[in-house]
Amino acid sequence: MIRVAIIGASGYTGAESIKILLGHSEAELAYLTALAEECGAVADVFPQFKGRCDLEIEPLDLDKLAQTADVALCCLPHKVSMGFVPKLLGAGLKVIDFSADYRLKDVSVYEKFYSVEHTDHANLARAAFGLPELFREKIKDADLVANPGCFPTGALLAIAPLLKEGLIKTDSIIVNSVTGASGAGKNPSSKFHFPNMNENVFAYGIGVHRHMPEIEQIAGEVAGSDVTVLFQPHVGPFDRGILSTVYSEPVKAVSDEQLAQLYDDFYDAEPFVQTRADAPGVKDVVGTNYCHVFVTSVKGRIVSFSAIDNIVKGASGQAIQNMNVAFGLQETLGLI
Amino acid sequence: MIRVAIIGASGYTGAESIKILLGHSEAELAYLTALAEECGAVADVFPQFKGRCDLEIEPLDLDKLAQTADVALCCLPHKVSMGFVPKLLGAGLKVIDFSADYRLKDVSVYEKFYSVEHTDHANLARAAFGLPELFREKIKDADLVANPGCFPTGALLAIAPLLKEGLIKTDSIIVNSVTGASGAGKNPSSKFHFPNMNENVFAYGIGVHRHMPEIEQIAGEVAGSDVTVLFQPHVGPFDRGILSTVYSEPVKAVSDEQLAQLYDDFYDAEPFVQTRADAPGVKDVVGTNYCHVFVTSVKGRIVSFSAIDNIVKGASGQAIQNMNVAFGLQETLGLI
Amino acid sequence: MIRVAIIGASGYTGAESIKILLGHSEAELAYLTALAEECGAVADVFPQFKGRCDLEIEPLDLDKLAQTADVALCCLPHKVSMGFVPKLLGAGLKVIDFSADYRLKDVSVYEKFYSVEHTDHANLARAAFGLPELFREKIKDADLVANPGCFPTGALLAIAPLLKEGLIKTDSIIVNSVTGASGAGKNPSSKFHFPNMNENVFAYGIGVHRHMPEIEQIAGEVAGSDVTVLFQPHVGPFDRGILSTVYSEPVKAVSDEQLAQLYDDFYDAEPFVQTRADAPGVKDVVGTNYCHVFVTSVKGRIVSFSAIDNIVKGASGQAIQNMNVAFGLQETLGLI
Amino acid sequence: MIRVAIIGASGYTGAESIKILLGHSEAELAYLTALAEECGAVADVFPQFKGRCDLEIEPLDLDKLAQTADVALCCLPHKVSMGFVPKLLGAGLKVIDFSADYRLKDVSVYEKFYSVEHTDHANLARAAFGLPELFREKIKDADLVANPGCFPTGALLAIAPLLKEGLIKTDSIIVNSVTGASGAGKNPSSKFHFPNMNENVFAYGIGVHRHMPEIEQIAGEVAGSDVTVLFQPHVGPFDRGILSTVYSEPVKAVSDEQLAQLYDDFYDAEPFVQTRADAPGVKDVVGTNYCHVFVTSVKGRIVSFSAIDNIVKGASGQAIQNMNVAFGLQETLGLI
Repeated sequence: MIRVAIIGASGYTGAESIKILLGHSEAELAYLTALAEECGAVADVFPQFKGRCDLEIEPLDLDKLAQTADVALCCLPHKVSMGFVPKLLGAGLKVIDFSADYRLKDVSVYEKFYSVEHTDHANLARAAFGLPELFREKIKDADLVANPGCFPTGALLAIAPLLKEGLIKTDSIIVNSVTGASGAGKNPSSKFHFPNMNENVFAYGIGVHRHMPEIEQIAGEVAGSDVTVLFQPHVGPFDRGILSTVYSEPVKAVSDEQLAQLYDDFYDAEPFVQTRADAPGVKDVVGTNYCHVFVTSVKGRIVSFSAIDNIVKGASGQAIQNMNVAFGLQETLGLI
Repeated sequence: MIRVAIIGASGYTGAESIKILLGHSEAELAYLTALAEECGAVADVFPQFKGRCDLEIEPLDLDKLAQTADVALCCLPHKVSMGFVPKLLGAGLKVIDFSADYRLKDVSVYEKFYSVEHTDHANLARAAFGLPELFREKIKDADLVANPGCFPTGALLAIAPLLKEGLIKTDSIIVNSVTGASGAGKNPSSKFHFPNMNENVFAYGIGVHRHMPEIEQIAGEVAGSDVTVLFQPHVGPFDRGILSTVYSEPVKAVSDEQLAQLYDDFYDAEPFVQTRADAPGVKDVVGTNYCHVFVTSVKGRIVSFSAIDNIVKGASGQAIQNMNVAFGLQETLGLI
Repeated sequence: MIRVAIIGASGYTGAESIKILLGHSEAELAYLTALAEECGAVADVFPQFKGRCDLEIEPLDLDKLAQTADVALCCLPHKVSMGFVPKLLGAGLKVIDFSADYRLKDVSVYEKFYSVEHTDHANLARAAFGLPELFREKIKDADLVANPGCFPTGALLAIAPLLKEGLIKTDSIIVNSVTGASGAGKNPSSKFHFPNMNENVFAYGIGVHRHMPEIEQIAGEVAGSDVTVLFQPHVGPFDRGILSTVYSEPVKAVSDEQLAQLYDDFYDAEPFVQTRADAPGVKDVVGTNYCHVFVTSVKGRIVSFSAIDNIVKGASGQAIQNMNVAFGLQETLGLI
Repeated sequence: MIRVAIIGASGYTGAESIKILLGHSEAELAYLTALAEECGAVADVFPQFKGRCDLEIEPLDLDKLAQTADVALCCLPHKVSMGFVPKLLGAGLKVIDFSADYRLKDVSVYEKFYSVEHTDHANLARAAFGLPELFREKIKDADLVANPGCFPTGALLAIAPLLKEGLIKTDSIIVNSVTGASGAGKNPSSKFHFPNMNENVFAYGIGVHRHMPEIEQIAGEVAGSDVTVLFQPHVGPFDRGILSTVYSEPVKAVSDEQLAQLYDDFYDAEPFVQTRADAPGVKDVVGTNYCHVFVTSVKGRIVSFSAIDNIVKGASGQAIQNMNVAFGLQETLGLI
């Protein structure tokens, strides 16, 4: 049994990780940590686990961590995470990091978008980007996996086949996404106060969303050349799910049949990416680690759609998929 | 034109009062105040008023208030309000107070449920309870009206005919209500954080909700004897509305036809209470000052239902209905 | 491996049963049937199963059923089910029936509330009522289990300890429930059309809901005497969950501590009933087979609360819990 | 008083038109019609009008119409409307038509997208397009106004200043919109069944939505040259509102300040279009006839946003705005 620690277990991604691991046949929850003021019995912090989990969430003790766990799911926030990951690695664990701290290979881009100095260049350089559909081989050998952002997961799976094939112009991609409100995390705020968020939908992060450079970096790796993406997120009145609608320009004529075939081939062996013959709704994937994709052409453009659960395939589920890959387990364990 | 000041204009009831008064033909917004940190152009504080209202919300200046307004809608919180109401009255205005500070005639009950000493006994004794359907005559003469709580408004309108007629036992009434989340006010909290409140429904204030003694006091006045009410509120995943389901025991046999006739007669002249031949939904009244009621009997009990908009008939609409009554205007002005 | 057939697999309870069984380690989906016009690949009927289930839903063939399955989850509607259950039993299967057809032991009550003649008295007499927390021993020996209604499941778990202990009057129980809209099933209707149901809450089935006699029958069995229940359901704008608030009168003084202890003892060994020290929300149990209960006293009455997922503990989850019991498997398999 | 008839009053746009006209000081509801099976007292068809409106909805009688009304709001469906509009005009009324039948000037485009022969070419040629912000002068003289589609209203107001100024390329505009579910109308369907639509968001009408040619036609009139628009609608789990996010390419460098100034100038005299310094949410405009717009540039593209209430500015409110214009009334009557 792989022994799993969750660092920063008191938030939404911590809860989802706990839920998934309770049903994982070859991994077990070994150690849960959080800030002192958020500790306590799992069943008290998250009433949904009453009778299902009798663990405690405790303040992090690195010695205890080293003795009890083989892998850490590090659910700490951006900027905080890079202060802890070296210690987690130093304790001898593999680390799946949920933050953005190890995703952006260009330190200057990170520092611009996150407004903080990057303090762990060495591990940044070594980290594998945890999108198994694109980087499975690197993840197998990694002891540090940077779990992707939720929007990049959906956006990249929607257009990876086009980029890989060189089918689209790389300077005119538009990613229009709408996410459920759980993406805001558990801390109350005016925008996400129920009477303000309910029956509402709005754009945010216009021109400055931190997932924009992340999408561009990985899209560029897939395409083998620089890619520019205009990424515009919106948030709507539902808990979970991201629907991404991606507009791109083909470099040559391509039929809908060819597009469908391309996607079918590209994702044929992927357990968690399902191609559709119609547009997916987020409700088709909520609560699962699946990504549904659909591609077609409209008025000379290619429009591709993807739907994921932002907390599962966009965070905790993908982290455990990465863990499965990194430990040589069957990739779907705990996730079907 | 009646010149209206709103004291504490920056919350949900302030916004709804502004909206109603923008369409009132014989009253006008004259002065809007709030705490300094919540001041600014109405159109900035509430984007929905862009182009509709060019007033500013300002810190309260009593001299300016005295010069600019005939009546104050006092939307301050419980406990705070009684510190200001004497000053508003002293400035020569009539006052419609939204807080609970002038509702509970028994000071000891107030002090028990609100955990604070009552500091304005004199005005408390004089205040009219602002449920026009039951206390219209008193409101006409009042310079201080205690606008009722949202739950008491719905609960009392659901059972007033039964109480008035002496048709039900006064020691076994159960009021089961469910409110929309706007009842929590505008301040963010964990319970009302969208991802927690959405797709949820729960009970709260069990045995201790402050509207319980308010319902009992007024029910007692209507019945002419002490009334005991078990009031249990719940909150559900919608913005507005309160549905109250009231269970009571008849003192003698009564047919459904007799019940329907009793309610039809009781509310026949009331513009804002509509009797129904079926159970109302909150969506039938949301955005209006109407209360829909339905009464029937089940297994020897009487079950009565009422639906209101908690922010309109349960707060701002009723306040303006009270203002209309207190100033001798047509009662429905601005409200249809 | 227990081989499971789902009869009437194309609705919400069929889908949830499929989902649960995909993760069940000692049972497998063997045969799925529906009306001809609702047949097809599971992944087409329910897009959420793309890549997770490659079975077909087919028209029922009794010979094939007999050869492929050990147990049938019969998800047919009321009145239809009793036409099929004898054939399913005749094919040699155990049957867990989701309909009301085998729940009401008094045929005249069934015929009154369901407006149809009961055509299978023999099996009705033999059927076990599938609430394992109350009837586990009978279920172990049963080849026909009548899976309880969703409201009765929540209501009965909320008050069973009180009834068993003889602590409450049996003629004045009021069950006030609110359910999510999935309770209406998959067929579109005006009341459940999104623009009508969203932001709404209303009462229905006033005095005539079919779950009322079911609650009374089982409550009577638990109490050992006739029980009268006033059951009033409401529906609110959320997918899943039932919150039941039950008001009852104690026959003697009882403290909150005694009530809590009574519930803790009663449910101590139950894996799926969790006692709480505060009121549960439906979101604490949605997506699980758990029931959360809380009991307290208010103004001389006992108020008990329960929360369940109406499609899981209120239907498919409980059916599989019953299946586990009936086949001697660990009761929680597939359900944690 | 302008006497208003509503033809096809039993749907959502009929209800909203009734609501607005109840508060209109210079127009009155005179005659309401619907199909025979949808007739009855307004208060029965729409419980929200109990006590507010005592009119009946009746089958259409053209003689009665001619005697009782000066203008018809024709809320009939596409294809049906063009069978009635000539008769309404023939009865001597001005007509505001809500359908698409008089919007698309190119009959062949209409016939392609609506799959039916157009039977009223003469009136089609004469009809004014009822977007007052762009065509006020034509509306003043019109006796037939084609009220715009909801999506075109939002999309066109978001980009009209850019088109008018010739600031953007006319062959690469992308309009990405998300609408509330009331856009589907009142007839129940599986997609809009609450348990399917709630917590969901999906794209539809991919490449074939009928509002695409409507946007293109009017955009072309504003630009003075052919315009190609890729329009992609989505629907989300809320009642009302359309948020449009429009991506376009500038033909020359333009600063955010210049863009803001352009929009401020363009809409300076418009009562119902408000420019914003930040992105609007649909909740800022729901229940009003306002359109909020915001424009900025991102990565060399211009991104403009608009929010409207699809039933008010996108239908009934705009119709009454058009009526006000056509009758020489103050344009905002009944709408603020």
